[in-house]
Amino acid sequence: MTYAGVLARYRAWMDIPAHTADITLLEGNTPLIPVPRLAEEMGGGFELYIKFEGLNPTGSFKDRGMTVAISEAAGRGARAVICASTGNTAASAAAYASRAGMRAIVIIPEGKVAAGKLAGATAYGAEVIQISGSFDDALSLVVEISRRHPVALVNSLNPYRLEGQKTAAFEIIETLGAAPDWLCLPVGNAGNISAYWMGFTQHHAAQQSGLPHILGVQAAGSAPLVLGHPVDHPETIATAIRIGRPARGEQALQAAEESQGRILAVSDDEILFAQRRLAASGVWVEPASAAGIAGMFAEIRAGRMQPKGQRIVAVCTGHGMKDPDIIARQMPAPRLLPVELRALEDAVLEEK
Amino acid sequence: MTYAGVLARYRAWMDIPAHTADITLLEGNTPLIPVPRLAEEMGGGFELYIKFEGLNPTGSFKDRGMTVAISEAAGRGARAVICASTGNTAASAAAYASRAGMRAIVIIPEGKVAAGKLAGATAYGAEVIQISGSFDDALSLVVEISRRHPVALVNSLNPYRLEGQKTAAFEIIETLGAAPDWLCLPVGNAGNISAYWMGFTQHHAAQQSGLPHILGVQAAGSAPLVLGHPVDHPETIATAIRIGRPARGEQALQAAEESQGRILAVSDDEILFAQRRLAASGVWVEPASAAGIAGMFAEIRAGRMQPKGQRIVAVCTGHGMKDPDIIARQMPAPRLLPVELRALEDAVLEEK
Repeated sequence: MTYAGVLARYRAWMDIPAHTADITLLEGNTPLIPVPRLAEEMGGGFELYIKFEGLNPTGSFKDRGMTVAISEAAGRGARAVICASTGNTAASAAAYASRAGMRAIVIIPEGKVAAGKLAGATAYGAEVIQISGSFDDALSLVVEISRRHPVALVNSLNPYRLEGQKTAAFEIIETLGAAPDWLCLPVGNAGNISAYWMGFTQHHAAQQSGLPHILGVQAAGSAPLVLGHPVDHPETIATAIRIGRPARGEQALQAAEESQGRILAVSDDEILFAQRRLAASGVWVEPASAAGIAGMFAEIRAGRMQPKGQRIVAVCTGHGMKDPDIIARQMPAPRLLPVELRALEDAVLEEK
Repeated sequence: MTYAGVLARYRAWMDIPAHTADITLLEGNTPLIPVPRLAEEMGGGFELYIKFEGLNPTGSFKDRGMTVAISEAAGRGARAVICASTGNTAASAAAYASRAGMRAIVIIPEGKVAAGKLAGATAYGAEVIQISGSFDDALSLVVEISRRHPVALVNSLNPYRLEGQKTAAFEIIETLGAAPDWLCLPVGNAGNISAYWMGFTQHHAAQQSGLPHILGVQAAGSAPLVLGHPVDHPETIATAIRIGRPARGEQALQAAEESQGRILAVSDDEILFAQRRLAASGVWVEPASAAGIAGMFAEIRAGRMQPKGQRIVAVCTGHGMKDPDIIARQMPAPRLLPVELRALEDAVLEEK
């Protein structure tokens, strides 16, 4: 059968209202890419896969949840959606809202606006409003306005987002024939780790597909779940997980505990190293997306994870094209050569 | 069966050497997204689909051909690949070469280097060399060096690229159950239009799946196949098709003629308009990728294409994330509001 998106494929597994319409961009169905060389670098003897969520329509995993949230909103007649976001959520909300013929309003906090980060939302036609306050202020305002007016809130407080996001767990199970031994993934607002755990437990209850240990990975400068308290000024190059007060922190801690996994923090350097190692296997991801692999590296090196004979899946949540600046900034100026075969031969044939 | 990339799926349809290895990132298997609203805007009464090739691993259709070209090179023991490119080809070559454990050398012409455009190739670890000459100089040099040394040429002169690219035609036939009536796509170097026509004719010969009319679309400032002569200084915002001397011009003209289609040119304004209309259906593509739809718009408006009752597929070759600058440059500064519900209510609830 022709693939028609996560709602069409997994509707029976979702707890959603009957009025939910189908607003889809054929999100999901993302590849599970084997990366044997990365496994070798960590000692080998185990299977390692990347669930590459950057190949969703707007370039991140957010599309899986957004199709459900917007479909629910459209089905009850909402004509506008609102969210506080500067990144992947905004782009995804804007894409699905515009497809549904709805307005998308994106509220961003005070401060320097990185045009590149907002290009996605703008391209899809979102109306962007900046407020002279913090991200938390922006979030409070959108929650309040969605309570009082027929404007659908599509931040991750929206429960239908998780219903869609959990479908990535189903896809992994279907591709591997069972749940993996470990699932490693970045943790920011903690919605995705919660959704994966929902998906794995639901599928296991129905079909005994097994349960993975969950390794949730935060950035050290933005690690409230590791520190045990909110972080007022989170700092990390991994902007997609730069969140000091995760909306679903409790659920994330519970997922880690129930799965006999854990949540840990890695440094920005470890994240950037993991990003380069992933790219060396042909998978370019935005920095936050490399956190899962960075955490796995750290755990294996410290002897706290014994990978031999195991099957490990790392979730890469967004494409590297989401943040080209982090590469461009470090890029050396290219060598300049004259138009001469000999000069090029010397450059190309020198041993590296 | 688990999806394992275009080589695994379509090997029997490809004219490739037996030594070809399998270097894959699970490219292909891209969605065919219905865009009924766009069809309505053009009068309705026909089916319109976007083959969204921007959801390949490196963000463009180049991956389909690159998996085959790099697999062939790896299979005969090449340890380095080379290409002249500043854009999608370079990123794709770098990704597959790094996955194969080979060096990727990218030659770029003189002039200002847009760091964003090279970020992909750099992220995947390519060695970038600039020469003090034109793109044609760069191409001549890489051809020459690949003749003399065991460095595989992966520019579109490489015949295996087309063997991989033609698989997109197979996927369209499989999804629709038959070839569409029209296939609209951008034409730059003219490899892709040639590959699609190869794919459709091959499939039709084997399984009577039908043949589409091909509408190839160039940018007006870079339209050698419409003008009938090379363009020395091609100019268009659609950088991915800014090519004055197409490598496969003859094949492209033949594909248009044999299919009873044609090749036409559209202005940059028409391309940017089509880009916005696509985004309003949730599909953000780089400017060149909107040329197919822009050409279809122009033909329908001029009465030269009667779409009623037809099935039309437009190929969008690269993701909008490939060129965020074109959006960011036009982006208005966001409105700034105080942190007050009332102010936000006024802004959000005003009629648009």
